[in-house]
Amino acid sequence: MPGFCTAIIGATGAVGAELIRIIQEREFPVSDLRLFASERSQGKLLEFRGGKHAARALSASELKGVEVVFISAGGAVSKEYAPVLAQQGALVVDNSSAFRGDQSVPLVIPEINGHEVVGRRGIVANPNCSTIQLVLAVEPVHRIWGLERLVVATYQSVSGTGGRAMQELRAQSMAYLEGRPLEKSVYPVEIGFNLFPHIGEFGEDGLHVEERKIVQETRRFLRDESLSVTVTAVRVPVFRSHSEAVVVTTRKKTSAREVADALRSLPGICLMEGPDAHSYATPAFAEGRDEVFVGRVRDTHPEGHGISMWVVADNLRKGAALNAVQIAEHAMGLV
Amino acid sequence: MPGFCTAIIGATGAVGAELIRIIQEREFPVSDLRLFASERSQGKLLEFRGGKHAARALSASELKGVEVVFISAGGAVSKEYAPVLAQQGALVVDNSSAFRGDQSVPLVIPEINGHEVVGRRGIVANPNCSTIQLVLAVEPVHRIWGLERLVVATYQSVSGTGGRAMQELRAQSMAYLEGRPLEKSVYPVEIGFNLFPHIGEFGEDGLHVEERKIVQETRRFLRDESLSVTVTAVRVPVFRSHSEAVVVTTRKKTSAREVADALRSLPGICLMEGPDAHSYATPAFAEGRDEVFVGRVRDTHPEGHGISMWVVADNLRKGAALNAVQIAEHAMGLV
Repeated sequence: MPGFCTAIIGATGAVGAELIRIIQEREFPVSDLRLFASERSQGKLLEFRGGKHAARALSASELKGVEVVFISAGGAVSKEYAPVLAQQGALVVDNSSAFRGDQSVPLVIPEINGHEVVGRRGIVANPNCSTIQLVLAVEPVHRIWGLERLVVATYQSVSGTGGRAMQELRAQSMAYLEGRPLEKSVYPVEIGFNLFPHIGEFGEDGLHVEERKIVQETRRFLRDESLSVTVTAVRVPVFRSHSEAVVVTTRKKTSAREVADALRSLPGICLMEGPDAHSYATPAFAEGRDEVFVGRVRDTHPEGHGISMWVVADNLRKGAALNAVQIAEHAMGLV
Repeated sequence: MPGFCTAIIGATGAVGAELIRIIQEREFPVSDLRLFASERSQGKLLEFRGGKHAARALSASELKGVEVVFISAGGAVSKEYAPVLAQQGALVVDNSSAFRGDQSVPLVIPEINGHEVVGRRGIVANPNCSTIQLVLAVEPVHRIWGLERLVVATYQSVSGTGGRAMQELRAQSMAYLEGRPLEKSVYPVEIGFNLFPHIGEFGEDGLHVEERKIVQETRRFLRDESLSVTVTAVRVPVFRSHSEAVVVTTRKKTSAREVADALRSLPGICLMEGPDAHSYATPAFAEGRDEVFVGRVRDTHPEGHGISMWVVADNLRKGAALNAVQIAEHAMGLV
C-alpha cells in the first residue's frame, strides 16, 4: 500500500490504541506501521487493518526510515527521540508537554492553526487534552469579541492519566460497591466515587501542573500572554471524556445568541441546542465521537460581556489521538 | 427526659436519617420524638437513643403538641404543614425551598445570622445545601473586602437528590462494571461513571433550578440583590458531599494570604493548608464531618482582587441536617 512509513511510540497505551483506531478510520496512508511499547508491553499483539502487529522495543535503529511518528509515551521519551527523528526528516507529532512551551515548535489545533504546519517536517506539539476542547470553544469568541477574562473548572476523566488509572477507578469502584477497602496506587487519594483538584504536582503559585498547562497553552493559542485565565482542574470518577464549565468575559459587547451563531457552523464543534437534556453533552455522550460539544451557551454577568458554556469532548480522541492524526494530515498535504 | 416534643417529617429519607443521628450526637433535648414518613416507608423502624420508633403517617392531629419540627419531605409537604405548625406555636425548620424566597421567613446559616432566630418560633428556612457551604466560605470575604463577582462550578453528589438517587448510582455503577446496560429512573441521563449540568428544570434564562437557588439565596445572604453570581451546577457520580470551585473578585484589594488568615479561625470552617493532598478536601474526606472545608486558597486575576478556592462539605450534614439542628439550638435558646 502506498503511503508513509509510520510509527507509534506508546502504542499499547490508552492514546496509542486510539491512534491505531483513528489511522484506520480516517484511512491515513500508511505503507508500513511500526508499533513501539515500553518493556512491560513488548510483544503484545495489536490489530491494524486486519493484521496483527507485535509491539516492539524502541531504539534509534528501529526508527530509521520512518516518515511520520506519533509519540505518546511521556515527556522523557519525547525529549530523547523527537529531536533524533526530526533530524532524520520525519514529521514528529508529540503528545507530551515536552515541546509545548518551545516557541520554535508549532502547537497546533488543526481547525485553528492547521495552516501553520502544511508541508512541515520536524516536531509539532499536540496540545494538552483539556486545552484543545477549551480553545476550540473560546478562540472564535476571542477572535470576534476579544477575551478579557476566562474562568474554567474542569471535570477530567481518568483516561487522561492512562490505562492504569482506568484500572484503578474500576477496582476501587468495585471494592466500594462490595464494601471492601479501596487500594491506591496511581492517584494520591481515592478516585472511586470521589474526586480531587490535583492533577500533577503543585507549584509555589498554588497551581498544579495541569492548571499551569491550560493557562500557558491557552495564552499561546489566543496570542495574549497576559490574558486573565483562572483554572481549577479536577479529576472525577469518569472513565472517558473531559467536561468544562467555562465563563468568558468579552471586551466587545455580545450575547449568548451571537456566540451560538458564531459557533454553530464551525468545523470540529457541535453546538448542543434544545430543551433540557438536549442542551448539553455528557462524558458518556461524547465518548468515541470526534466533535467538541459546546452546550448551555448562556448570558451571564457582566451584562453583554459575560458568556457561560459547557464544553465536553472525548479526551482520547479530539483531546489526543484525533488531533494528532489531523496534524499529520495537514503536514503531509492530505487536506 | 426533659426537652421539646420534636417531630421529623421525612424521617426515613437521607436527610431524615442524618437528623436523627445529629439530634443524638449533639444531645438536642427531646422529650418525645415523632417520626413521619410517606406511605411507602410507614412502619419502618428507626433507632433513636437505643429505642425503636416506627415511622408513621403524617396528619395534622398527629402533630398536635409538637414544639420543634424538622421538615425534609419536599416543597408540597412543607407548604401544607409548615403554616399549620407555625400557627400552633412550633418552631418549624424547613429544609425545602418553599419559603426561602419569603422575606418574612428567616433564611439562616447559624454561624452567619443565627442571632436572627434566637427565641424565634414559626417557620425558619434552611438554605440549599450548595448555598450553605458557598456562603460560609465567601461571606467573610464579602464582609471584609466586598464582593464584586462570584463564579462557581459545583460537583454535587447524588445524596442531594435522596436515597433513590444513591441507589441509582449504585445500580448503574455495578451494571457498568459488569458490562450490563444502565437503567435510568431518577435522573434524565446516566449518572454511573457520568456527570451532567442539570439539577432540576431549566428556565428561560438557561439556568436550572439548582443554579437559580444558589444565585438567589447567596444574594440574600450577602444582602446584595444585584451581586454578579455565575453558577454552573453539576451532578457527579459521588454518593456524598458537594465540592465547589469558587472564584471571587473583591472590591477592595486583598490577597490569598489575607483571605486565609480571615477564614482560619472562623466557626464552621476548616482551612486546609499544607503541601499537595493536604491543601484540599475531597468528598470522601468530608463525609460525616461537620465543617466546611476551604482549601487551595490562591491568588488569581485580577491582581490583588481575585481569589480562587476549593470548598467541600457533607451535603447531608452541614448542607442540611446539621444546619437545621443548629438553627433549632439557636431558636430554642440552647447556645
